[in-house]
Amino acid sequence: MNTTIRPAEKKDCERMMELIRELALYEKAPEEVTVSFDHFVESGFGAHPVWWAFLAELDGKVEGFALYYIRYSTWKGQRLYLEDLLVTEKLRGQGIGKLLFDRLLEVCKEKKYSGMVWQVLDWNEPAINFYKKFDGVKFDGEWLNCSI
Amino acid sequence: MNTTIRPAEKKDCERMMELIRELALYEKAPEEVTVSFDHFVESGFGAHPVWWAFLAELDGKVEGFALYYIRYSTWKGQRLYLEDLLVTEKLRGQGIGKLLFDRLLEVCKEKKYSGMVWQVLDWNEPAINFYKKFDGVKFDGEWLNCSI
Repeated sequence: MNTTIRPAEKKDCERMMELIRELALYEKAPEEVTVSFDHFVESGFGAHPVWWAFLAELDGKVEGFALYYIRYSTWKGQRLYLEDLLVTEKLRGQGIGKLLFDRLLEVCKEKKYSGMVWQVLDWNEPAINFYKKFDGVKFDGEWLNCSI
Repeated sequence: MNTTIRPAEKKDCERMMELIRELALYEKAPEEVTVSFDHFVESGFGAHPVWWAFLAELDGKVEGFALYYIRYSTWKGQRLYLEDLLVTEKLRGQGIGKLLFDRLLEVCKEKKYSGMVWQVLDWNEPAINFYKKFDGVKFDGEWLNCSI
């Protein structure tokens, strides 16, 4: 299949939201998606964007995306934070995730970010094994996520 | 002592960097601070700011700060990510951290963020106990931090 990796545009938001909901359903947590469509669009394409994304388009249809924002570390400076890497269920295991991940690594170089960071659930073996394929990936289980 | 909480300005960057280095020294990792002063200033006060901060000023001297950025969750929307909450060593335990933390919670309300998130090292008991004092704080140890 013909896979294209390209930056997300405003017109892609509807399909992206579809994929987000599909994943939430797969994870048995559809009620956890409480963000509104308008907020999603405004956050990516409003006056002050806070997220950016690359899409994987297969034969003209968006089948996956990588969504990121800029994290600021007081020790390391600006880094790319990969929030979501997502490929529609029926097309997993075909290297689409790798194309998206590689594209993000290019962005890090282009923008001179000090690296890329993300999180993975400690029991999500398929995802951990996927990340292990990339040179230099480090895992750190010493931190607790806190929220209020 | 007279404590004022106020937004950080460009002129405060030098003192903030001093506090960042002081903390790194305390954590026995001064070499881990690889960010340059110019990058720090540019990231906070350049054309496209990626961090914001509140300072705790005691009798005219900055003795602590809370630095944050905006995180985007595809499920929850925009949230405040607290990157650093820092009070100079000799003034800890006097409620300055709480003033900063409370100010951030106000920002969440003002900006209609869906919450505040941050991380804490799982062995850092004083910090964990500090956070437990706030109503509704949740801890989640199921995630691994990944970096490349």
